[in-house]
Amino acid sequence: MTETESCRPPTPPADQAEPEHWRTISALLSEDPPVPDALRQFLCSLSPADTALAVSRLSHAERGKLPTALGPEQAAVLLRDITPEQGTEILEKIGPEEAAPIVDELPAGEQADILRDLKSRSSEAILKEMPRADAEKARELLQYPSNTAGGIMIAEYLAYDESLTVREVLDDLRVHRARYGDYEVQYAYITGQDGALTGVLRMRDLLICGLDLPIRDIMIGTPFHVPAPTPLDQLIRIFEEHKFLGIPVTDDSGHLIGVLRKSSVLSAAEKEVNSVFLKAAGIIGGDELRSMPLYLRSLRRLAWLVPNIFLNVIAASVIALYQDTIQAVIALAVFLPIVSDMSGCSGNQAVAVSMRELTLGLVKPTEAFRVFFKEATLGLINGTVLGALLGFAAWLWKGNLAFGLVIGGALAINTLVSVVLGGLVPLALRKLKVDPALASSPILTTATDMCGFFLVLNLAALALEKLPAS
Amino acid sequence: MTETESCRPPTPPADQAEPEHWRTISALLSEDPPVPDALRQFLCSLSPADTALAVSRLSHAERGKLPTALGPEQAAVLLRDITPEQGTEILEKIGPEEAAPIVDELPAGEQADILRDLKSRSSEAILKEMPRADAEKARELLQYPSNTAGGIMIAEYLAYDESLTVREVLDDLRVHRARYGDYEVQYAYITGQDGALTGVLRMRDLLICGLDLPIRDIMIGTPFHVPAPTPLDQLIRIFEEHKFLGIPVTDDSGHLIGVLRKSSVLSAAEKEVNSVFLKAAGIIGGDELRSMPLYLRSLRRLAWLVPNIFLNVIAASVIALYQDTIQAVIALAVFLPIVSDMSGCSGNQAVAVSMRELTLGLVKPTEAFRVFFKEATLGLINGTVLGALLGFAAWLWKGNLAFGLVIGGALAINTLVSVVLGGLVPLALRKLKVDPALASSPILTTATDMCGFFLVLNLAALALEKLPAS
Repeated sequence: MTETESCRPPTPPADQAEPEHWRTISALLSEDPPVPDALRQFLCSLSPADTALAVSRLSHAERGKLPTALGPEQAAVLLRDITPEQGTEILEKIGPEEAAPIVDELPAGEQADILRDLKSRSSEAILKEMPRADAEKARELLQYPSNTAGGIMIAEYLAYDESLTVREVLDDLRVHRARYGDYEVQYAYITGQDGALTGVLRMRDLLICGLDLPIRDIMIGTPFHVPAPTPLDQLIRIFEEHKFLGIPVTDDSGHLIGVLRKSSVLSAAEKEVNSVFLKAAGIIGGDELRSMPLYLRSLRRLAWLVPNIFLNVIAASVIALYQDTIQAVIALAVFLPIVSDMSGCSGNQAVAVSMRELTLGLVKPTEAFRVFFKEATLGLINGTVLGALLGFAAWLWKGNLAFGLVIGGALAINTLVSVVLGGLVPLALRKLKVDPALASSPILTTATDMCGFFLVLNLAALALEKLPAS
Repeated sequence: MTETESCRPPTPPADQAEPEHWRTISALLSEDPPVPDALRQFLCSLSPADTALAVSRLSHAERGKLPTALGPEQAAVLLRDITPEQGTEILEKIGPEEAAPIVDELPAGEQADILRDLKSRSSEAILKEMPRADAEKARELLQYPSNTAGGIMIAEYLAYDESLTVREVLDDLRVHRARYGDYEVQYAYITGQDGALTGVLRMRDLLICGLDLPIRDIMIGTPFHVPAPTPLDQLIRIFEEHKFLGIPVTDDSGHLIGVLRKSSVLSAAEKEVNSVFLKAAGIIGGDELRSMPLYLRSLRRLAWLVPNIFLNVIAASVIALYQDTIQAVIALAVFLPIVSDMSGCSGNQAVAVSMRELTLGLVKPTEAFRVFFKEATLGLINGTVLGALLGFAAWLWKGNLAFGLVIGGALAINTLVSVVLGGLVPLALRKLKVDPALASSPILTTATDMCGFFLVLNLAALALEKLPAS
């Protein structure tokens, strides 16, 4: 990778006018015969951000042509610049014979990342076309789920046998200088005879130690390490707790299989928060980009909306039971959507706080009582304030105190219900091993809508003779 | 920091039963006379995550007692373990005379971070109590906004004058080994006579060069650097584009003022995504934790809900204009909240995609036409599907085709309107320099609610004689 990347000038991306780079790429792709060198040179001159933007503007057909036009080595550089979704689309589009040499150019960890995102049929086909040893390495990494130490670790690191001397290590460093240039070298990992991790060597300690000492004598023994299945949230905590920049990862039998970098863990954490945000807004099945095919964007959004429409119909059926009450006091119809919307807002605030506290480890799924108490007290206050505001508005509008009390009372009680539910639902879902980011909001909204409609209409039915007739 | 932290055992946190550490802390705090050593030892035995959890469970009075019980040095360690919100609360509670020595124990960058979070009166008072030189340094860092290179950089790094030799640098490294142990040392930064940044020295190059060479000869000249006001989104791009682990930061006159670590930038990016998520859910004014005082949590949530209630009343006032229509066809009241909710859901999906594409740099605030086109095509499809589903349900329920057409047609058109608006509103807000995370959803919901109510009721009024009479 190092050589192919060196063509890029080290200038920070400027945020001025927006040149339409994709038009140039599109023009170069349509040349006949093609001019691969010009295309390579042009892509090299763009920053990754500009490349990603330009690629997202190409047509699907044009994106499919890029790998052939660039050749495997440059296509691999391209894959690292664009978003994973764009990369997956391109690899699915071209055949496995063409995709395999491109994937083979990537570092092992990134091979696994991209193969994991492909349909299993496509990734199998690509693995079959790859050189056997590389495919085996990739398959090994593929077995670890993406949000675990094994899925996040990199496979490029320095490892030495503990019997070597300081001089031998320094010689190796000098000889392979070019290759190691890509590594983030602050530590080397030391293994015993059978490949088991036995120590960590701080590179700067090589500076100040006798040349003929075996590294066994200057390494830090029984090093801190994590097993491959350790999940992301624990990894985040570990890097918070210790000042490591890298931690070795071991398999069941204690063999060194990779290195976890702090920056990779932080990146994974950012992706995780982001996926929570998107799921909570109803974007499911992965990040949506507007460069994706229309049918896919549409289907993915409908997969969230269609179940929602059923839930909405169920909630609104409460209203159908009270048509006589509405008939008698038509002004109720004006306030039903307000009570439903406002309760949803209050409840979703509580959902967000619970999701956040779960992520930070500041609440355990079993602490329902604490959350109940904290949200119930807040719900009483906010319910009273919001109920008073809306009730006052209703009273003013109709000049009828009873009407104001019905509307205000219903919103007050329903706010209390929805903040308590909003606080508890994510905890319950986490305990049931259902993704709270995905399911919290629809469950909450349905429940609080039903309860809100019931409260408004039932209170109105009770106070019917005091309300303003339609 | 190094010595005080070394008391913590390097074991990964286990996720088993939940011991109630806060009870122990609470008991130790209430001892009379206090036993500071036991408290220190106990806190030392907890991981940062467990410390943060335990502190969040203490009463406000108990949290206020912690700094005195621990002494400044240990209190500073505690500050780094707990969340910034918890830290701010504790520092605001104790007087500036007690807070100043604690803040003074922190690295300069973290001093600025925590002072930035305090009320300006409190941070001024603390700065006045700090040793003059330290306060000046902190004030210097405080002038940079938190999400810029100057706000994210650290002030602990190695810098050498370019006239030194390799031997002199190696000697300095040996002599100050203990102090530099805390630094992340892969590069040293080289300055000219007037403190201007002139080069970067790869530490491993010291391994392989003659001892009497001046470092000027082995440093990398005209190094890559960023000006202090560079904003976070550009910094993320720069670290994506280049493989640096650290980048020097300079002021207006080219002087080296700090170093930006990749991990700090990634952390800041995670915080940013997270704040977008919380703001979109109506949690404003910073992260809410349930350990915060009730009045503060309540006020912050109301600050978002109260404007929302006004917007909701404005939207629902459309319904009030059509009371006669509802009176004639009472079943419309059942479907008004469904149309409003479903349109809100569809629109918020588009908001999330726009927010995401803005963050990734895959859409520019000026590309309104592209977003319009992409969302309008999707809105046509999804509007048709959702409209057909809901319209069919309405037809079945009332056995009246015209009723189904009114409801289905209104949802179809309103879905189109709301996905287009949802896609465009974040772009427009970004252009107007209003925070899209905060304002998108309320603006969108109000607009699509009004439009949805208008469509349902206006279509119904037009087709009145064909609809089922109440």
